[in-house]
Amino acid sequence: MPEKIRIGISGYGNLGRGVELAIEQNSDMDLVAVFTRRPPETIKVRDKHTRVVHIDKVKNYRDKIDVMILCGGSATDLPEQGPHMAAIFNTIDSFDNHGRIPEYFDSIDRVARKSKRTSIISVGWDPGLFSLNRMMAEAILPEGKSYTFWGKGVSQGHSDAIRRLEGVVDAIQYTIPIQEAIAKAKSGDNPDLTAGQRHLRQCFVVAADGADRGKIEQQIKTMPNYFADYKTSVSFISKEELERDHKGMPHGGFVIRSGKTGSAGENTNIYEFSIKLASNPEFTASVLLAYARAAHRLSQEGRFGAFTVLDIPPAYLSARRAEDLRSGLL
Amino acid sequence: MPEKIRIGISGYGNLGRGVELAIEQNSDMDLVAVFTRRPPETIKVRDKHTRVVHIDKVKNYRDKIDVMILCGGSATDLPEQGPHMAAIFNTIDSFDNHGRIPEYFDSIDRVARKSKRTSIISVGWDPGLFSLNRMMAEAILPEGKSYTFWGKGVSQGHSDAIRRLEGVVDAIQYTIPIQEAIAKAKSGDNPDLTAGQRHLRQCFVVAADGADRGKIEQQIKTMPNYFADYKTSVSFISKEELERDHKGMPHGGFVIRSGKTGSAGENTNIYEFSIKLASNPEFTASVLLAYARAAHRLSQEGRFGAFTVLDIPPAYLSARRAEDLRSGLL
Repeated sequence: MPEKIRIGISGYGNLGRGVELAIEQNSDMDLVAVFTRRPPETIKVRDKHTRVVHIDKVKNYRDKIDVMILCGGSATDLPEQGPHMAAIFNTIDSFDNHGRIPEYFDSIDRVARKSKRTSIISVGWDPGLFSLNRMMAEAILPEGKSYTFWGKGVSQGHSDAIRRLEGVVDAIQYTIPIQEAIAKAKSGDNPDLTAGQRHLRQCFVVAADGADRGKIEQQIKTMPNYFADYKTSVSFISKEELERDHKGMPHGGFVIRSGKTGSAGENTNIYEFSIKLASNPEFTASVLLAYARAAHRLSQEGRFGAFTVLDIPPAYLSARRAEDLRSGLL
Repeated sequence: MPEKIRIGISGYGNLGRGVELAIEQNSDMDLVAVFTRRPPETIKVRDKHTRVVHIDKVKNYRDKIDVMILCGGSATDLPEQGPHMAAIFNTIDSFDNHGRIPEYFDSIDRVARKSKRTSIISVGWDPGLFSLNRMMAEAILPEGKSYTFWGKGVSQGHSDAIRRLEGVVDAIQYTIPIQEAIAKAKSGDNPDLTAGQRHLRQCFVVAADGADRGKIEQQIKTMPNYFADYKTSVSFISKEELERDHKGMPHGGFVIRSGKTGSAGENTNIYEFSIKLASNPEFTASVLLAYARAAHRLSQEGRFGAFTVLDIPPAYLSARRAEDLRSGLL
């Protein structure tokens, strides 16, 4: 029995709690401690034996944790925490600001090479599994077109944008892929489809008493970048309805590539990857843990620096031996 | 401009012709020669400048080919050709006898390590991309159930089994996934579903004049291993109809994993990979070529021996630089 992989969780929000749950499903892993910026005594974890430690003391765990899972946000947490942690631990994060990935990669790579640690960045499903499939589909079918659809799921950024409007008490926004657009993506015609042609935006809004609903709806539908370029529906609901019907965290999406083969491109081949998640944070956490296993192994092999999902041999995600994978799953 | 990857094709059937076509879509590759057991002058290739060489002279190409794509069959060709070629070249093959993969892997691994060559075996979609997705889905969602569906597509083995019956002139058999079974696989109930519960077998038969059609249908539907455990339909058609309507080579299929997350497995998350191919051999050939790029790179890194799709870092499939993949596709 090899020793278990010792996991640390940094940040105890939805994603951190998802990682805590997922560790229970992976018998080759142990949760060592949860690290938080809040007063540790205010955090209630699932297993009372799990230590909850203030983030300021994280350095004391340098030799007690094999992989630290960074569960902070991409806007302000990770750009600072990522390099800081990579100087101490092997790390996994879900940095999802696509435009800033190259810069973030470089900042982690520099630190991790110096500290002789292994970091896999931007893990999850997009970026993550969707990136992997966009890349593989393009490599396999060079002549074609790729489409990414998101949803049905909650966009936190769009929900927040609505909440900031005057007269809005609370709100939630679902991104929904348009079925006709999915059909077009698979048609073989390879049309150009903007994000607005691929997705609907469905908004449920709790308005304050006496608020001007017509004005709120108008403000949402014309909001630049967020809604103006999309078909957007706005429904007003009560606070009770919001609590009752809209507190789940489903999400999902598709990566579709339509590629042409044949002597004159006469054959259309469709490559498709999709997920449909009852719990977005729990699934994302499950992806992070599989890549934590890979980070541990790369680190043991002396392969230090920053990596992405595109660099990882798939077998490294599995606890099963190579022979076993070949005979059982190939 | 780096030097192009020099490709050889061994075997010029549907798959070999697919590789020849796919090379035209990959600007970093050149086709050096097609090798055949037939008299070379009887082979008509697409580009008259492509050399066609008898397989007996393959050793003369030891230093002229970077990766040899083995396009022979798994029953008799590859068990012999695979090790023979791995002693001379880096190789890619689509060995698809699932039960014998471990033994085949070992036979190639032994030779390739000795010859300092790199071989990636069992490349294609099943085994291949489907294996990769079965493996990744299980690693990410350890508590769940995986389902593989094949079709709609032609099963060559089943078509041949019908053709061997008395009174049958020609025949073709389609394997078709059962929609209700796909729905069950995604339902979250995680039922057990046998291959027969997942697939229909649809047979189109050209009968000889005066043949006993009732008897043929009965023999097909009761044929052990091939049809007895499946819902099977048999239609008699004319030779003209067979030629007109059934000479395409479509195929496809799904890998679905339904995985549970949450404190009591209350959340069902569906991971799905699927393909829908107008040309099975052309798509398979496209997969082989992407892995040929990876084999070439592994070989340049001095990583010799046998590998499978489970071992290959995805980025190795692409001609694009790592920085470019990170900024463009992650």
